[in-house]
Amino acid sequence: MKVIVVGGGAAGMSAASRVRKLLPQSEIKVFEESSYVSYAPCGIPYYVEDLVNDINALVTYTPEFFKKERNIDVHIKTKVTKVNLSAKELTTVSDEGEKTESFDYLVLSTGAIPFVPDKRWLEANHVYALRHLEDGDALKNDLKNLQNVAVIGGGYVGVEMAEALSKIGKKVTVFEMRRLMPNLDPEYSQIIKQEMEKRSIKVIEGFTVKAVENSGEKVRIVGDTEQPLFDAAVLGLGVRPNVELARSMGLKLGETGAIWVDDRMRTSEPSVYAAGDNVEVNDLVIKGRKRYAPFAPEANKEGYIAGSNIGNQNIAFPGSAGSAITKFYDLEIGVVGITEDEAKKYGIEAFPVKIRHNAKASYYPPQEEVYLKIVFDKKRRVPLGGQVVGKNVWGRLAYLSLAIENGITVDRMFFSGVPYAPPFAPVWDSLIVASRIFYERV
Amino acid sequence: MKVIVVGGGAAGMSAASRVRKLLPQSEIKVFEESSYVSYAPCGIPYYVEDLVNDINALVTYTPEFFKKERNIDVHIKTKVTKVNLSAKELTTVSDEGEKTESFDYLVLSTGAIPFVPDKRWLEANHVYALRHLEDGDALKNDLKNLQNVAVIGGGYVGVEMAEALSKIGKKVTVFEMRRLMPNLDPEYSQIIKQEMEKRSIKVIEGFTVKAVENSGEKVRIVGDTEQPLFDAAVLGLGVRPNVELARSMGLKLGETGAIWVDDRMRTSEPSVYAAGDNVEVNDLVIKGRKRYAPFAPEANKEGYIAGSNIGNQNIAFPGSAGSAITKFYDLEIGVVGITEDEAKKYGIEAFPVKIRHNAKASYYPPQEEVYLKIVFDKKRRVPLGGQVVGKNVWGRLAYLSLAIENGITVDRMFFSGVPYAPPFAPVWDSLIVASRIFYERV
Repeated sequence: MKVIVVGGGAAGMSAASRVRKLLPQSEIKVFEESSYVSYAPCGIPYYVEDLVNDINALVTYTPEFFKKERNIDVHIKTKVTKVNLSAKELTTVSDEGEKTESFDYLVLSTGAIPFVPDKRWLEANHVYALRHLEDGDALKNDLKNLQNVAVIGGGYVGVEMAEALSKIGKKVTVFEMRRLMPNLDPEYSQIIKQEMEKRSIKVIEGFTVKAVENSGEKVRIVGDTEQPLFDAAVLGLGVRPNVELARSMGLKLGETGAIWVDDRMRTSEPSVYAAGDNVEVNDLVIKGRKRYAPFAPEANKEGYIAGSNIGNQNIAFPGSAGSAITKFYDLEIGVVGITEDEAKKYGIEAFPVKIRHNAKASYYPPQEEVYLKIVFDKKRRVPLGGQVVGKNVWGRLAYLSLAIENGITVDRMFFSGVPYAPPFAPVWDSLIVASRIFYERV
Repeated sequence: MKVIVVGGGAAGMSAASRVRKLLPQSEIKVFEESSYVSYAPCGIPYYVEDLVNDINALVTYTPEFFKKERNIDVHIKTKVTKVNLSAKELTTVSDEGEKTESFDYLVLSTGAIPFVPDKRWLEANHVYALRHLEDGDALKNDLKNLQNVAVIGGGYVGVEMAEALSKIGKKVTVFEMRRLMPNLDPEYSQIIKQEMEKRSIKVIEGFTVKAVENSGEKVRIVGDTEQPLFDAAVLGLGVRPNVELARSMGLKLGETGAIWVDDRMRTSEPSVYAAGDNVEVNDLVIKGRKRYAPFAPEANKEGYIAGSNIGNQNIAFPGSAGSAITKFYDLEIGVVGITEDEAKKYGIEAFPVKIRHNAKASYYPPQEEVYLKIVFDKKRRVPLGGQVVGKNVWGRLAYLSLAIENGITVDRMFFSGVPYAPPFAPVWDSLIVASRIFYERV
């Protein structure tokens, strides 16, 4: 049996490795358009920041490793341009020209593409969107002699790049159409903005970028108000699923615009699986809805599932609640599930609880805070979503994500054993206090 | 209605506050034998360490606060010596002599007592067991001119006191009968020992202390081998429920030796509730078993439940899985649920998974590790217990505790949304990796 994987990121290599394990006799080929497979694009900001010195540190395994240790035939700098489903054949293009490959099973793990409103933006010099490791490398090299950098977009990538650029001494301006981290409540956005301003980063919210273009060697950001010229610009406007190939094959796309798959990671075509940032999966918050969750843990597991099922295991991916975390310097930012507005849209009566609480025992220095919002389902008495900003966010988000994914009621949450010791958490942790507020009022 | 609370720690004041809220017309009296109520004895090590300068910082609210703000009549330095259940009367002793008080409901929140094998040990000069804030104060004062300190017992208190004493420049020796943190696997004990030795703390394991006595102004630790004399000794040999008064009243004691209560926190006597470190509660791991869980979060919630039920709310405390955490310098140590041996004792086939894993993305400096052991129930496919040592332990323990308490299966754990970002966790977090190992092997 021959399995071809299109895209050698987390999902693709996870699928390939799983097939190898379960079907030792199979032939496995991976085609990857960049120069790296099994890489961690989430590490790019830390490479730009120089916390990571060697771009190869962001690569878990090399093509050589996969060939030698797992007998997986990896072809980098090779693009799959066409798939003939009835013939079970595809066409690849590389430096060696066009080739044809047959397959029994195909795994599409083509990932996501940074959203760029107008492709001419990227044609300008010193303007970057970050997808592959090469993009991070090019940006880092270019930055050596540049000083004023615009970050366009105030979401995850924007926040992480703002930190990275500030840490290497650049003068940073962040442009955001709405407000920083717009999936958070306005007052939480505000906290992030204050932290950025403390680090001398200029934040311009409510600014819609209409064009990014060169003015000589400089970069001009065009919008409603005149802006000074920049030396470089980094785009962080979110990502879109890369469905070009899937669309050309006539595969079903889902309600979010990503590739539709069932919980076995099968596309609408029996011989084609898909996994990673190009698919949508079951939403663990609103049953029956799909969620686009372009996150590395999901990609790895979806690839695992796809590969396992090609290997005859018949296992299901439950889905995602969209747990995601980042940080700006010491301010940690986490989000999971849905907002009050989304709940309303689905006819759910939401009961939001919002608190500001000590992150650890009040007497244990230094004093640190956590801001926590939990959106509860008033009728079912379960959490639907959460926002956590401040200190020790990871653990609180992990707890909340598990509670949301598994429908743990607020009654159990209130009396749950959130661990306590003065250096870590207060006796009445924010998670318990928030649950208690619901418990006493509803 | 008149409610009397015996013991003004976390459980007692939580109960009293809850009664006040639900029964505004009631009369509430609290008798506390020490000088403080609503205090955090878990903060004593940090006071000794001088991270906390003022002992009053460990007091959440003063007796005056309770009188003024909550109309709760607090009597400190007052011991309840006798309860006449049929007459619904009790006897108090204070500087003002003996008094009699009537009650409708009684809440016993008499806490725990440090275990001391022989009470003569504490009669020696410079020898301390830590129960009330006064004990911490006395120890801290005494230490000013002393240098060589023995810590007897290598459990939570021993580990925390070893850190505190080392941080203020004392020469510390820890004596432990078995091994450090004996509820952990031997190799995890070993990690803690190595950390202690790095800090120039002498650790003597397998040493049974037979006596602690004075030799002039010095302290002699008597055991199988001759030991140098010490300037002071701190005992940390665990705690026992303080059931003296309950026993004298004829209340039912449970299988762990603590006061038996139902899930409403009612004792065997209808008019008497109990809460805090003197009771046993439902074990959330082995159904039908009771657990002694002398931890502050449990105490607070048990008090809340007792007070709520006196206030006619009829609510239940689900129980505890014994989630507990501490640290030694930067080494974090967490434990929850049961061990393999305990599982065996209850006829459960356990499947332990033990891993050593990156605490965050491998490329994100500094490199940090976490050691994780999860004991799974092979048949029910749920976690029964866990040990976590290293970095970012709190969150992993919070997640694991919630999973254990709610019977979340390993199948859900493997595909759960443990949050990921390079500074916080690897893409395949230790929790996911451990679940995957079970998933693939069982």
